[in-house]
Amino acid sequence: MGHNQIAVVFFLLFIHVSVSVSSPESILQLLPSDASSLPSYNNIGHRKFISDDFLFCEGWRFTIETNDAGPWNRIPSRCLSFVQDYMTGDRYLSDSEAVADSALAFAKKIEVSDDGKDAWVFDIDETLLSNVPFYQLHGFGSEIFDEQSFNDWVDLAEAPALPASLRFYDELKNLGVKIFLLTGRSEFQRNVTVKNLDYAGYSNWERLFLRGPSDQGTHATVYKSAKRKELEDEGYRILGSSGDQWSDLIGYAIAKRSFKLPNPMYYIA
Amino acid sequence: MGHNQIAVVFFLLFIHVSVSVSSPESILQLLPSDASSLPSYNNIGHRKFISDDFLFCEGWRFTIETNDAGPWNRIPSRCLSFVQDYMTGDRYLSDSEAVADSALAFAKKIEVSDDGKDAWVFDIDETLLSNVPFYQLHGFGSEIFDEQSFNDWVDLAEAPALPASLRFYDELKNLGVKIFLLTGRSEFQRNVTVKNLDYAGYSNWERLFLRGPSDQGTHATVYKSAKRKELEDEGYRILGSSGDQWSDLIGYAIAKRSFKLPNPMYYIA
Repeated sequence: MGHNQIAVVFFLLFIHVSVSVSSPESILQLLPSDASSLPSYNNIGHRKFISDDFLFCEGWRFTIETNDAGPWNRIPSRCLSFVQDYMTGDRYLSDSEAVADSALAFAKKIEVSDDGKDAWVFDIDETLLSNVPFYQLHGFGSEIFDEQSFNDWVDLAEAPALPASLRFYDELKNLGVKIFLLTGRSEFQRNVTVKNLDYAGYSNWERLFLRGPSDQGTHATVYKSAKRKELEDEGYRILGSSGDQWSDLIGYAIAKRSFKLPNPMYYIA
Repeated sequence: MGHNQIAVVFFLLFIHVSVSVSSPESILQLLPSDASSLPSYNNIGHRKFISDDFLFCEGWRFTIETNDAGPWNRIPSRCLSFVQDYMTGDRYLSDSEAVADSALAFAKKIEVSDDGKDAWVFDIDETLLSNVPFYQLHGFGSEIFDEQSFNDWVDLAEAPALPASLRFYDELKNLGVKIFLLTGRSEFQRNVTVKNLDYAGYSNWERLFLRGPSDQGTHATVYKSAKRKELEDEGYRILGSSGDQWSDLIGYAIAKRSFKLPNPMYYIA
């Protein structure tokens, strides 16, 4: 490694400078990263600013995570590296840990009844299970969704747990809350879904809802609301609901508290 | 400036490194910054990671902006610098521009009726007007809220416009949508509030709702829902609602689409 391969940077001490580096450490395999979406340092004279792409993509992420954006199709092309870095670096894991902490703080305050009717509803994809290994081979939401490829990935039954969700799930189970899984996956995927949940470390849920023939073609909000209504009609009190999509959380028969997990890769209506 | 005041940092070229610096440029006066909350660079052996505080505070911000956190009192003490940097740097302005863009994209698709009944509801504080000049003298949400100090600030009528909101407000006005202002401020503050809105560049709203005697002590969600219901009962169609608090947006008589603006400084139930 010669001198010509070393960058020497002088920072005057009175300038507040901080450096961020996307972590190469991850539970998930990291693709070669294009650093262009990271906060980049520019110093023209004495003017310093965060890169336009980083600011733009942070703003875009704010609007999709709060549902300000409404329905959207694909991530902005200039945000591909940003989304890749977010999903494969520390931030996705850390943000989902913060959501788990919020949910757990709420759950621990519940006085769980001994009638066995306190319920929590979890979505599966990007909530209990992470499909990042699939999406990193398919452009992190920058490509048109290919159902056949995704179904092939589902058939492998090898999606890892989102660590924060597994931790929360186990704590919730210990509190005596009944757990219901409500996924947009279809009945024909029941066996591989159970196999994958088991592989990822999930156990002892009460019931797993998948889309049956009559649920095909309905919006997720409608399908999921109807299933929650079924639970309410059986006498369950839905204390909480966890999902990466707003369509997991809104509609009717909504939970007392809802917990939106991060997902800047795709939108489901 | 001697050599001992210069920090020399060597970066190997093969390491993807990016540097972010909180911008000293702002519409708002920037306080001396404690850089500890910014992404900080650590390199222990070959391990690199974003600072724990930055990751923690980003995760916390995710939970409050999505309402996962539910009610909260004060910003975490370790996030004071983070919130300060967010609010006084480029990110707050940029995120609120993204929200304005989302709202405008929706508004432009509306076929505004000529019956004059298409309505939009705006909150005022941290939505149309920015109180950052006040909060930067009061710890950016790290101190207990002091109503007297805040009312003194309101009496000055010098809060600047949040630029993104002023731009959106004016575009909406041009589309022919009727604008309603719905604030948690009280009737005794009507004159200074109108004066401040005028000072900041806002004009031609249809009506300004402030809390009357019977609204005192009610939760914002209840008070604001009741006022929106009054509008609906008058035949208005509430197309959109803009606010920095979830209590501006949820409850009943909710708008067709809601637009959550960023506010990591305080929570109003």
